[in-house]
Amino acid sequence: MGRNPFTELDIIERIRSLQMITDPQVKLGIGDDCAVLRRPGGMVELLTMDTMIEGVHFNQDWHPPELLGRKAASVNVSDIAAMGGMPRQALLSLGLTNETPTQWIDAFMAGFLAVLAAHDIMLIGGDTVKNPAGVVVSVTLIGAAEEKKVLYRSGARLGDLVWISDVPGIAAAGLELCRAGLAEDEQWRRLVDAHRDPVPEVALGRLLAESGLVNAMMDTSDGIATDLAHICRASGCGADVDRDALPGSELMIAAGNLLQQDPLVWALKGGEDFLLLFTSPASARTKLTELIREKIDRKIYCIGSVTEKDRVILRQGQELKDIAFQGYDHFR
Amino acid sequence: MGRNPFTELDIIERIRSLQMITDPQVKLGIGDDCAVLRRPGGMVELLTMDTMIEGVHFNQDWHPPELLGRKAASVNVSDIAAMGGMPRQALLSLGLTNETPTQWIDAFMAGFLAVLAAHDIMLIGGDTVKNPAGVVVSVTLIGAAEEKKVLYRSGARLGDLVWISDVPGIAAAGLELCRAGLAEDEQWRRLVDAHRDPVPEVALGRLLAESGLVNAMMDTSDGIATDLAHICRASGCGADVDRDALPGSELMIAAGNLLQQDPLVWALKGGEDFLLLFTSPASARTKLTELIREKIDRKIYCIGSVTEKDRVILRQGQELKDIAFQGYDHFR
Repeated sequence: MGRNPFTELDIIERIRSLQMITDPQVKLGIGDDCAVLRRPGGMVELLTMDTMIEGVHFNQDWHPPELLGRKAASVNVSDIAAMGGMPRQALLSLGLTNETPTQWIDAFMAGFLAVLAAHDIMLIGGDTVKNPAGVVVSVTLIGAAEEKKVLYRSGARLGDLVWISDVPGIAAAGLELCRAGLAEDEQWRRLVDAHRDPVPEVALGRLLAESGLVNAMMDTSDGIATDLAHICRASGCGADVDRDALPGSELMIAAGNLLQQDPLVWALKGGEDFLLLFTSPASARTKLTELIREKIDRKIYCIGSVTEKDRVILRQGQELKDIAFQGYDHFR
Repeated sequence: MGRNPFTELDIIERIRSLQMITDPQVKLGIGDDCAVLRRPGGMVELLTMDTMIEGVHFNQDWHPPELLGRKAASVNVSDIAAMGGMPRQALLSLGLTNETPTQWIDAFMAGFLAVLAAHDIMLIGGDTVKNPAGVVVSVTLIGAAEEKKVLYRSGARLGDLVWISDVPGIAAAGLELCRAGLAEDEQWRRLVDAHRDPVPEVALGRLLAESGLVNAMMDTSDGIATDLAHICRASGCGADVDRDALPGSELMIAAGNLLQQDPLVWALKGGEDFLLLFTSPASARTKLTELIREKIDRKIYCIGSVTEKDRVILRQGQELKDIAFQGYDHFR
């Protein structure tokens, strides 16, 4: 018997290839941030499901239950935001040990429901189960969008600009600070919070979808190297990323110095930033940045462009490296 | 810090009481087999989510991956059936260890997708995650129904008859046979299959919903004592169960003799039968049994009646016992 190679892509491809059913309600099944179901009146329903497992996706040594509850909601909200949708209802399946204290459950639920309330999402179902090995949290989130305005990974066009909504790598920096025992150090708060309590980009996602200026979009969960490769694969194109255009932060550089780690590695292969990664026609550059500044007072960062080649290239001066799906440190 | 008492009811009540949002799309949130969302055209969407954890909900010593995949789908299909709906789409979150063999994954998916195919359900999303502690399976299922025909737990009326769709306790008998090392013994096949590969009652559920003859319905997952108490609590009534009217089977009696266990305990507090438990006006008795025999060639069993009192009574001759939520062996 072969061991499973355990890459999520393989298993998803396996599932896709096994399935026979076709359903006219299903506009998009497996393969994007959400599944998309057609609904009457030009609307679609967006559905996403994510599971977080103790010891794999979170560590209770530095992840307090309230922030864990917030994150369990936020990472799913981010998937709806990534398609330009509006989150509406949630289901929660919560696996708890017999030793999980009532206060822990209360704090977790307070965090979870606070994020739901902030986005007008109603918790409509789910279940609670025993799991002696640790806490397991599965969330299903249902969203809504106008069918014509939904943004997919597959929409990138040759010559598009590639944008990111904030500094990539901050969540990875925060995780490393937690691992180093600095989770409660006020100095690193912004980075640690990026890992423990990410903020989904719902307002920006909707604005981008409404604008008509964006061709492809997703949220970043595995680092730019892998996430941009998903857009390229879905769109049948490649991308060039300009190393010098990647936004950084002084705090992240300071954390890199302290931990003797490379912030560029965090940016390229660090997971769980939950930023928006998107492409737009080059002609929309000014209109897009001005719209975002005007409507939500935010800055976005142009980090590269869409190319013909089936690769994701990191470019620094004359130096080129293919970083697609590999992260940064695998190939240097 | 208090330990959690870990009863699902408590946690659900806790969640309910914490939530503020009201959403006009939500016809029913937490508290039935599915959540119910209003959709245009007099339709509703039904949503359910269930998680199965290795070592808690299944044991791989006697649960082969293909049957486990089937069961993960079937238990969710049963929740849709329990409201009279038609299952449509599924999301699957699969937690696997690094040691889970590829062949195991293939067999699991073959079983899962076979049940989906049998009901024309399309798998539209989900995720795969690592879980070193064992296999964890979460499924979200989406169904559809006409708003006016959905059957809830809360519809039972004083004087209604209480019905069950098949012999309760067979899954519990099957589980005990598995535990006794008899999972592969052909003699016990029907009981063992009831535990490992339950068959959701979709056709019967839809027929009952279409009939207009049923007031309340749910599927049985915790034994009649608890399940009927759910209907009573939701409907604000009580129920009398006639011990002599409970359908049994010779095979179950033989298994009880072999294992020195009481089949009545299996029927009252045995979990995971996934039968339909429902109530109808007494006047509909003949019409209902004839309809079911005629349309799907099935027999159903009248096991009692709905009463005014806030209790679930097991009646045998002059002897009465309140079995609500307690199962049988807690009070004898």
